[in-house]
Amino acid sequence: MRVLGIDPGSSVTGYGVVDCEGSSLRHVAHGTVRPRRTGSVAERLAEIHRALDEVVASHAPDAAVIEQVFVRPSNPKSALVLGQARGVALAALGARGLNVAEVTPQEVKSAVVGIGNASKEQVQQMVCRLLSLANAPAQDAADALAAAICRAHQGRLADLPKRGASRRPSPRTGSWVVRRAR
Amino acid sequence: MRVLGIDPGSSVTGYGVVDCEGSSLRHVAHGTVRPRRTGSVAERLAEIHRALDEVVASHAPDAAVIEQVFVRPSNPKSALVLGQARGVALAALGARGLNVAEVTPQEVKSAVVGIGNASKEQVQQMVCRLLSLANAPAQDAADALAAAICRAHQGRLADLPKRGASRRPSPRTGSWVVRRAR
Repeated sequence: MRVLGIDPGSSVTGYGVVDCEGSSLRHVAHGTVRPRRTGSVAERLAEIHRALDEVVASHAPDAAVIEQVFVRPSNPKSALVLGQARGVALAALGARGLNVAEVTPQEVKSAVVGIGNASKEQVQQMVCRLLSLANAPAQDAADALAAAICRAHQGRLADLPKRGASRRPSPRTGSWVVRRAR
Repeated sequence: MRVLGIDPGSSVTGYGVVDCEGSSLRHVAHGTVRPRRTGSVAERLAEIHRALDEVVASHAPDAAVIEQVFVRPSNPKSALVLGQARGVALAALGARGLNVAEVTPQEVKSAVVGIGNASKEQVQQMVCRLLSLANAPAQDAADALAAAICRAHQGRLADLPKRGASRRPSPRTGSWVVRRAR
């Protein structure tokens, strides 16, 4: 499964692509979209849309993931501005028929570092280690890669038997089936 | 000048196109984009983007206008959701190289009804009358048309001499020039 993670923002939008096969992860690509500061808001948003559309076309991910946003009542205007960049990213993914999952920042940190309140730097370092990167990616690209790793991890967890269930081969078919403990 | 007005929303996005020549207004088109309720957020936003792109391609406006949003601190989550639809609309306009102006709700109401605190119904009725429409457009389309009328009106005002300035032909070239009063 190839997963595309997006960390949207009006100034910088990060993206990261990882391949996941069983428990192994492979880095495919990452980068940032930085619209020209001289452009109008509409032009800058169009630039984000165009760039993400190209990323999806180039890397053909199977799934996409974006971080959930918790907006503070103290700053509703920044919620609107962030919403604009986020909407554009979602539209670019939706236009290519991608299923977009949402993950909380805590889920991302837990999946990558192991603790839900890890710092940005810890996430950046662990992304580097997990994907065997020679150099640390830019913060927004690292966050996007972390979201992709989290989603890949969730995908693997979904394949595991649920709590209280055991996995063993079916005596009839010989294939692995999930059985609930009594 | 052909102006496209947009009233963005995640459930319903209204649009309206008017032609403006001197002080005369002509209705060109209006409508609403209502993404399927069954689609994911990404699919719905992609649908808004696609529909508005088609509107711009069909009617080739010279300018676009969108209402400014005043977000209340009590509801930052709805600011994020509205921001997403707004961002998609702006990106669709920006991608076609359109200059997008922002107008306040008060400016729109003053331009269409004559008072800044007019009701939605008054705006709807006056849009109908100003554009000689047989039937009232849906609320969101009426708001989009009202924004377009406001922008067209502002465009005309911009051509007028500023307060304290008089307009008279240049004695040298014979063309009209704006002169400041002493």
